[in-house]
Amino acid sequence: MNCDQVVAHIMKNDRFSQWLGIEIIKIEEGYSKLKMKLRDEMVNGFGVIHGGITFSFADSALAFACNNRNNFSLALDVSISFTQAVVAGQVLNAEAKEMDNGRSTGLYIITIRNEKEEQVALFIGTCFRTGKNLI
Amino acid sequence: MNCDQVVAHIMKNDRFSQWLGIEIIKIEEGYSKLKMKLRDEMVNGFGVIHGGITFSFADSALAFACNNRNNFSLALDVSISFTQAVVAGQVLNAEAKEMDNGRSTGLYIITIRNEKEEQVALFIGTCFRTGKNLI
Amino acid sequence: MNCDQVVAHIMKNDRFSQWLGIEIIKIEEGYSKLKMKLRDEMVNGFGVIHGGITFSFADSALAFACNNRNNFSLALDVSISFTQAVVAGQVLNAEAKEMDNGRSTGLYIITIRNEKEEQVALFIGTCFRTGKNLI
Amino acid sequence: MNCDQVVAHIMKNDRFSQWLGIEIIKIEEGYSKLKMKLRDEMVNGFGVIHGGITFSFADSALAFACNNRNNFSLALDVSISFTQAVVAGQVLNAEAKEMDNGRSTGLYIITIRNEKEEQVALFIGTCFRTGKNLI
Repeated sequence: MNCDQVVAHIMKNDRFSQWLGIEIIKIEEGYSKLKMKLRDEMVNGFGVIHGGITFSFADSALAFACNNRNNFSLALDVSISFTQAVVAGQVLNAEAKEMDNGRSTGLYIITIRNEKEEQVALFIGTCFRTGKNLI
Repeated sequence: MNCDQVVAHIMKNDRFSQWLGIEIIKIEEGYSKLKMKLRDEMVNGFGVIHGGITFSFADSALAFACNNRNNFSLALDVSISFTQAVVAGQVLNAEAKEMDNGRSTGLYIITIRNEKEEQVALFIGTCFRTGKNLI
Repeated sequence: MNCDQVVAHIMKNDRFSQWLGIEIIKIEEGYSKLKMKLRDEMVNGFGVIHGGITFSFADSALAFACNNRNNFSLALDVSISFTQAVVAGQVLNAEAKEMDNGRSTGLYIITIRNEKEEQVALFIGTCFRTGKNLI
Repeated sequence: MNCDQVVAHIMKNDRFSQWLGIEIIKIEEGYSKLKMKLRDEMVNGFGVIHGGITFSFADSALAFACNNRNNFSLALDVSISFTQAVVAGQVLNAEAKEMDNGRSTGLYIITIRNEKEEQVALFIGTCFRTGKNLI
């Protein structure tokens, strides 16, 4: 079971990532890179994209990176900092890098960038590893 | 312009909060309480609700609490800790309490609870205040 | 081994908490309340107390709360928001409350207040439980 | 007033960074690299270095990076994840990199490493810029 197969299995069942329109660009052990297009129905009450959309995109990148060794892992603590507003029509990418791969926990930085490769949000997530196979 | 009117104005334009099915329970200055029902299309690849849904719900509670004095404010830094998984069919509530109301920033704790009033996530958010009227 | 005895054992060996001048006000299961006096040697380059002092005080409150059931636990992820500067001569108190007591992890809010009981910092910490006895 | 001069001025008055034994390795605009040696008096009740010491070291790196354009800036929100315990006798280094340099706020990642260049903690900090000259 390689890391691409694990992520394909997760993605097949991940209805909210499907709603978001997430596409997989690249998967490696402990790594993921995704993209998505922002739509009008993702807007908040101020005319920009809801912070929850950006977070959700990063959270999927985390899930795809931290689970892809087939060790079922759950997000435990996450911090996100928003550095630039984004609007409908833009295409974002999310890149998840592993900063620590412990036995019980893992630590990841996910950078969200716009089409100009400018950072729009920075997300740091710790996952808890259950030790159970995902598949 | 009272705090209920400000939130009604935000909510009217907030397409993603509408998609989430967020209902307003109570608004006070610097405070909000919301509820929402979790649906099948909000599920992640592990059969539970996507962490981004819970975050988004809390983020809307933050926006409705920190903007309701009509001083346009944006989420800057947020931390969330997930303490219990939630599944489709459950009804959650989110309660945002103001911990600090500064001139340039504000600090809020948002507690997400299930229908048994058990905490499922704890969200701490700092907003930046622009000083501009929202309406 | 009750919770007061566990904390007394930790404190006896905790040289940095001793340097800080931390005094124990109250210990209960999953709870701690501490105080300390801020000194000139704790000041940063801007003439106010170094943020690391306030953090350290809260981190000791976390350790005393999350370890006092004699289940050895380590801070994993922490977020702190600073809401008011503090200066040498002031007396702070720290109160740690348990928000979740899981088998593998625990979640705590620590509020730091000055002598007027105004919040000066808010600290949220997740600990990892090793399952080993401390004593 | 160049960035080295600003940091020298901060460090001269920073009594707690002096107590920590912090040495400056390199300063650039929005960047700092520091080192310090861990001492017995920095130990917590479990025989390892108190988390507050590691945090304080990173917090000084943040201060030296975010203030060195002579725009007085204060830590607002910080998250730290501890990935490896450290003990007395070890020499740590802290490297602060700027992830965003906004008008009102700035975002920094500080990586703390041991003498083998292994990451022992990851610190993300947002500062608030006052717009006032430090010197």
